[in-house]
Amino acid sequence: MSIKRAIMDGFIWPVRVYYEDTDAGGVVYHAAYLRFMERARTEWLRELGFEQDTLREQGFLFAVKRIQVDFHRPARFNQLLRVHSAIGQLGRASMTFLQDIVSDGQCLCRGEVQVVCLDASGFRPVALPGALASTLKEELSRVG
Amino acid sequence: MSIKRAIMDGFIWPVRVYYEDTDAGGVVYHAAYLRFMERARTEWLRELGFEQDTLREQGFLFAVKRIQVDFHRPARFNQLLRVHSAIGQLGRASMTFLQDIVSDGQCLCRGEVQVVCLDASGFRPVALPGALASTLKEELSRVG
Amino acid sequence: MSIKRAIMDGFIWPVRVYYEDTDAGGVVYHAAYLRFMERARTEWLRELGFEQDTLREQGFLFAVKRIQVDFHRPARFNQLLRVHSAIGQLGRASMTFLQDIVSDGQCLCRGEVQVVCLDASGFRPVALPGALASTLKEELSRVG
Amino acid sequence: MSIKRAIMDGFIWPVRVYYEDTDAGGVVYHAAYLRFMERARTEWLRELGFEQDTLREQGFLFAVKRIQVDFHRPARFNQLLRVHSAIGQLGRASMTFLQDIVSDGQCLCRGEVQVVCLDASGFRPVALPGALASTLKEELSRVG
Repeated sequence: MSIKRAIMDGFIWPVRVYYEDTDAGGVVYHAAYLRFMERARTEWLRELGFEQDTLREQGFLFAVKRIQVDFHRPARFNQLLRVHSAIGQLGRASMTFLQDIVSDGQCLCRGEVQVVCLDASGFRPVALPGALASTLKEELSRVG
Repeated sequence: MSIKRAIMDGFIWPVRVYYEDTDAGGVVYHAAYLRFMERARTEWLRELGFEQDTLREQGFLFAVKRIQVDFHRPARFNQLLRVHSAIGQLGRASMTFLQDIVSDGQCLCRGEVQVVCLDASGFRPVALPGALASTLKEELSRVG
Repeated sequence: MSIKRAIMDGFIWPVRVYYEDTDAGGVVYHAAYLRFMERARTEWLRELGFEQDTLREQGFLFAVKRIQVDFHRPARFNQLLRVHSAIGQLGRASMTFLQDIVSDGQCLCRGEVQVVCLDASGFRPVALPGALASTLKEELSRVG
Repeated sequence: MSIKRAIMDGFIWPVRVYYEDTDAGGVVYHAAYLRFMERARTEWLRELGFEQDTLREQGFLFAVKRIQVDFHRPARFNQLLRVHSAIGQLGRASMTFLQDIVSDGQCLCRGEVQVVCLDASGFRPVALPGALASTLKEELSRVG
């Protein structure tokens, strides 16, 4: 699967840049992009039918295990960004998201975020809930 | 008690301004001052012998009930600020902090923050732990 | 003008609560509500036809001068909130917003935020741009 | 150079975890570690004699170009962390920091952060200021 194709076919979530997201360098603060990526993951799961508060009541918690982000161009105050998200890899207890933050057709930054599924009480890795695993498998094959 | 006197005699906590605290206006983002004030409250309670994670295990949680902040002058990246804190009022289940953020002898902003004590399970207001109440009473009379 | 009426007739902006907005107390971090209120102000000005990056190029910058927030009930992860905003007072160089954060018909917190207009170069108070002043005047009379 | 050795010999900066840094999962929010790492880089440069506001006046700005972070164990509210930092690689216009966040002798997360030097006006990559380059070269050889 090419990363580019996955991202083009993926889930798209808009994010507006407010003052809270910028720094005195005049551009978006680097850690803010991680917040944008998480919003997009949350909204994608929601669209697929999975609410994280419900999952948590069922004993499943998600934790970021690994991130890798390349910053290409800065975003600025008031810009409307789009986060393109796709599944890059799917493990038994983890999922890796490929996420591009895009504006005017340009990729501003590209992230790869591995999220691990934990049991909410013991904080130990546990297999993804069945329904979520099969839904993401479909997403993965759809873009593959 | 005059606010000015309280703040001069109060607990002082240094805060350095990093990029994370600023916005594209070139100055510290207004909500960041609230974080600075909370750090100072936490450190003051610690100096007085009260660790909030221990208090929580004992069933006490603190929640901000009311804030009022006046912004006089902006702080900038890399500045070293000092948060001056004092107790303004002490209730059975609440305490009001007076907090000045100061740089080079100038008060950049002044806040009044009412914090309420809740029982950690039911989130209902509950009397301050006895030891904390008497310690703060002393602080209040010391500066009054 | 009653605050209640103003807020009911005002501009409404939805805000979803993500993990980034919460703290280990299990609820939304108090300073996060200030970010939500600023997003709503920005979007309202945008709907009225005023983009803050354009205004800044024209020499006008906005700074928060004073905030007062009462916290009634906590918001939680994954909740969908609505920020109701109205103009409470209009000065020559300042505007005061009344802002309620609402969920399921309940007001979770209520803020009063005074924003001052500065000239972007010298950071000195300056009269609101004419078009903005008259637009807000209309808003004020509409809800008064 | 082994990463482990570099980090052990490197610059150490303490960071206290406040409520602002945590999320409703009960632990430190993943993006908060990036803020901690930046504080440590800023303080290290300061200790080496380089103030970023002065560098900026001289025309040099730093931007994060690439980050990679592995999260091993969660940090919690009120914990005192230490950020261990070392130089991993030094380019003409960039520097790569190796940063471990440590508590009680355990590495909670490990980051590799590439920072690029830009000219403050055009935002184009530019060679590191001479004095900074030679200072970091020394640091690099010291731990190599």
